[in-house]
Amino acid sequence: MTREKIYLFDTTLRDGQQTPGIDFSVEDKIAIAAMLDDFGFDYVEGGYPGANPTDTAFFTQKRTNRASFVAFGMTKRAGISTSNDPGLAQLLQAKSDAVCFVAKSWDYHVKVALGCSNEENLESIRESVEAAIAAGKTAMVDCEHFFDGYKANPDYAVACAKTAYEAGARWVVLCDTNGGTQPPEVGAIVAAVIAAGVPGSALGIHAHNDTGQAVANSLAAIEAGARQIQGTLNGIGERCGNANLVTLIPTLCLKETYAERFETAIDRETLAGLTRLSHAFDELLNRSPEHQAPYVGASAFATKAGIHASALLKDPRTYEHVDPASVGNFRKVMVSDQGGKANFINELKRRGIAVEKDDPRLDRLISIVKEREATGYAYEGADASFELLAHRTLGTVPDFFSIDGFRVMVERRFDANGHLKTVSEAVVKLVIDGASVMSVAEGDGPVNALDIALRKDLGKYQAEIGDLELTDYKVRILNGGTEAITRVLIESGDATGVRWWTVGVSENIIDASFQALMDSIVYKLMKNRQLAGKIAAE
Amino acid sequence: MTREKIYLFDTTLRDGQQTPGIDFSVEDKIAIAAMLDDFGFDYVEGGYPGANPTDTAFFTQKRTNRASFVAFGMTKRAGISTSNDPGLAQLLQAKSDAVCFVAKSWDYHVKVALGCSNEENLESIRESVEAAIAAGKTAMVDCEHFFDGYKANPDYAVACAKTAYEAGARWVVLCDTNGGTQPPEVGAIVAAVIAAGVPGSALGIHAHNDTGQAVANSLAAIEAGARQIQGTLNGIGERCGNANLVTLIPTLCLKETYAERFETAIDRETLAGLTRLSHAFDELLNRSPEHQAPYVGASAFATKAGIHASALLKDPRTYEHVDPASVGNFRKVMVSDQGGKANFINELKRRGIAVEKDDPRLDRLISIVKEREATGYAYEGADASFELLAHRTLGTVPDFFSIDGFRVMVERRFDANGHLKTVSEAVVKLVIDGASVMSVAEGDGPVNALDIALRKDLGKYQAEIGDLELTDYKVRILNGGTEAITRVLIESGDATGVRWWTVGVSENIIDASFQALMDSIVYKLMKNRQLAGKIAAE
Repeated sequence: MTREKIYLFDTTLRDGQQTPGIDFSVEDKIAIAAMLDDFGFDYVEGGYPGANPTDTAFFTQKRTNRASFVAFGMTKRAGISTSNDPGLAQLLQAKSDAVCFVAKSWDYHVKVALGCSNEENLESIRESVEAAIAAGKTAMVDCEHFFDGYKANPDYAVACAKTAYEAGARWVVLCDTNGGTQPPEVGAIVAAVIAAGVPGSALGIHAHNDTGQAVANSLAAIEAGARQIQGTLNGIGERCGNANLVTLIPTLCLKETYAERFETAIDRETLAGLTRLSHAFDELLNRSPEHQAPYVGASAFATKAGIHASALLKDPRTYEHVDPASVGNFRKVMVSDQGGKANFINELKRRGIAVEKDDPRLDRLISIVKEREATGYAYEGADASFELLAHRTLGTVPDFFSIDGFRVMVERRFDANGHLKTVSEAVVKLVIDGASVMSVAEGDGPVNALDIALRKDLGKYQAEIGDLELTDYKVRILNGGTEAITRVLIESGDATGVRWWTVGVSENIIDASFQALMDSIVYKLMKNRQLAGKIAAE
Repeated sequence: MTREKIYLFDTTLRDGQQTPGIDFSVEDKIAIAAMLDDFGFDYVEGGYPGANPTDTAFFTQKRTNRASFVAFGMTKRAGISTSNDPGLAQLLQAKSDAVCFVAKSWDYHVKVALGCSNEENLESIRESVEAAIAAGKTAMVDCEHFFDGYKANPDYAVACAKTAYEAGARWVVLCDTNGGTQPPEVGAIVAAVIAAGVPGSALGIHAHNDTGQAVANSLAAIEAGARQIQGTLNGIGERCGNANLVTLIPTLCLKETYAERFETAIDRETLAGLTRLSHAFDELLNRSPEHQAPYVGASAFATKAGIHASALLKDPRTYEHVDPASVGNFRKVMVSDQGGKANFINELKRRGIAVEKDDPRLDRLISIVKEREATGYAYEGADASFELLAHRTLGTVPDFFSIDGFRVMVERRFDANGHLKTVSEAVVKLVIDGASVMSVAEGDGPVNALDIALRKDLGKYQAEIGDLELTDYKVRILNGGTEAITRVLIESGDATGVRWWTVGVSENIIDASFQALMDSIVYKLMKNRQLAGKIAAE
């Protein structure tokens, strides 16, 4: 059975640019267009040449190799001819393969926003499409406010779509501009448009996420016969965002109900690069990837529940809706309050720590973890502290050094020039091989000062921690109020490129930070030894 | 026409607890249960008594007034009677109004995870429901893996649902445990279950967001006849989260296609508190509310596009799918500095601060706020600091006292008994009416010590701040890594019952805390004078 093709239209660079807080430079756009082109989208919409200097500069050359490169713009203004509309001229001169016109299809907006007659608007659609085709471009029309317009005046909305199609538009895209339409309404209206004479093979859907259903609305349109989906990477876009193509693509490719009837330009091998694509895009936006994002989030295949975790390990397929590897993601089974013994053993095994099911030290470890988690520790976010605790409880980590005490001072005072300044100083007393070592340091804040002092002189271990670096620091106040407990999470890294998280908990933030810093150093020393052991064994 | 009721079942405290990175303490659970109860959910599921110490402690008393308080747990084990199952006994002894049993309904899992026969599993369902009813509880059954189970063996999945219903379960909840089922499948399977004899009025839906369609799946089940929805606040939950009730509720209440047929326990007035509920919950989790969240996000009604913005101001209703005020949110048009200015004047007016549009101090205030927000201040979460800044810039707040400096020391050392202990001490130097005042105090941590020292002797103002109390303290690290900036938010309250938030930002956490503590005290003094002014004027 031949499967029908669903065309993927990416508008990250155009509608995605409407996201509050997101502004692309020309360089950003070039980089993103290359990512989209490489991945295999059918259409890459680059922006609105003529609307702003960035988009105009971006369209001075074609920016894709495989994908059709699309310029967005308005239909010609009413009352003038296509050849006399400077905006249209600029749009048609842009270096694009296709032009996507935005056209009003709600009669109310034709009157209020355009201030022209319904017939004049149809004429603008018709003549703009014809002008684009005459200029050698593929023409498309985004019917703005289509679903709200259809509810207000179905005949006129359909007339807009039909006019675009009959003038030669390759795609007529039905837009839920305000984002409030529900999936059953989308399905019914798309079906009505097809019944009125615009074939589904020429219909696209452009959905927004204002009721959290941009993905469902896109699929409802496909079910009803539309064959093109407009959306963005990671669902960025105005207000609540556009349809998330990163969610839609694996659903179309992997869910039987769609995959047996439809195909897209994304093959299995490309699909395995989806998580990387999504994270690379976030990287470019300088924001953390959303942990709970469908398919590609760090938590998308993470299991915390004890009752599920043990069964999951027996047969992952029955606990995962798709194979994480199919989208380039990973399974993650977490240690937590809720975890069972099997979960625990497995977590230890994954870290190269072998322990027998009936080893009493295992029960001790489990009870220590539970007890500590009850007081605020969160080992699921602090792998290294967990590993360290396990090694300590199982007796497989040496006592490298011990702590005799520390003192941290933060002082705000007037300097010699009469300006208030804040100074942070830390003193640390360690015992290494029976000898006492005392170090002092200043820092940007008390934790920074403590970190510097702690790593200033580790005696015979000093050379080993030269490449240790604190890369992130998080604080969370538990319980709140005056009986607050502070949880500190610290991320560290070293020259091998490995990163690890450690945790500290105390009613005193400095104490909590100190615990996490200590764990990080001891973990690093332990890690060096494991590495050395591996190298020696080879 | 009478509308059918859709029952809202909140599982934030149970399934929401499976969210990676979220661990509720008993105090958290009490606070959240009160929020849910106040808002008007029909059912509040509190956790799994017996599974962990937190949930067991939480169920030592009933935690809701209006809502039915639900305990979650497993059906009785196969091969023993209900009266001999200690887990079941603990569940039935928990102080709950209702019990929600989780039951396998996929034959494969019955065999692999439970290791019993299909008939034994049905017997466990039947007898557990009967035991709950005999114990005076409302009984419900979550049919785990129902949709995947139905696809594998429809007869057995339906038999599980029917068994629960016929044994007297008020609700039989069909769970899409793995989260991969698509809306049309949900609709068809719910319809099939109803056709097989379980009435829709006894059916619930429990959806997960693994394909970004938990909301759509919930609504598809309602369309097919189910009448209860399980979900969580802000969609927290295992992997990609559960159905987001904060999105579903306004859709059910405001979207004609549902509102004309269905009703929920949430009336219009309560619905206007939805944004506050959602943000208060994020506050409790100490995370930033998602800007692009449907209905309640800061960007949900924000418009950036020039072409839309001007039309939007002409007639908002045609550019907004619902009225932002209906969910307690606001319209935000990011047009020009002019638009920003009107916004600002409005914000000040709301706080009783009158200022003319062309007052140069207003421009100064706007530029100070913009500059500070660029460096990490967040005035939308710190009303009192914003008000104070406005009064200072407009010259309407007196200089009560000034700061000459402070010093904070945290020391970890061995006490007389040889135990390591941590001591925090703060010294504060103030100038009040030209006289220098120096105070010293110890506290649980450096910020606590600073707070106590700062409020120990305020000279002639001391009597005025007697009822001032620090009620919450939050820390967020911005930027991360070694160039971290710390933002501290402090909530204070006094005997009048008023609470206010202040903010401090610095690379030094002690400094940031000090700023927020100072703002809180000055705000209190200013507030006392405003109150005195009002009373004098009366």
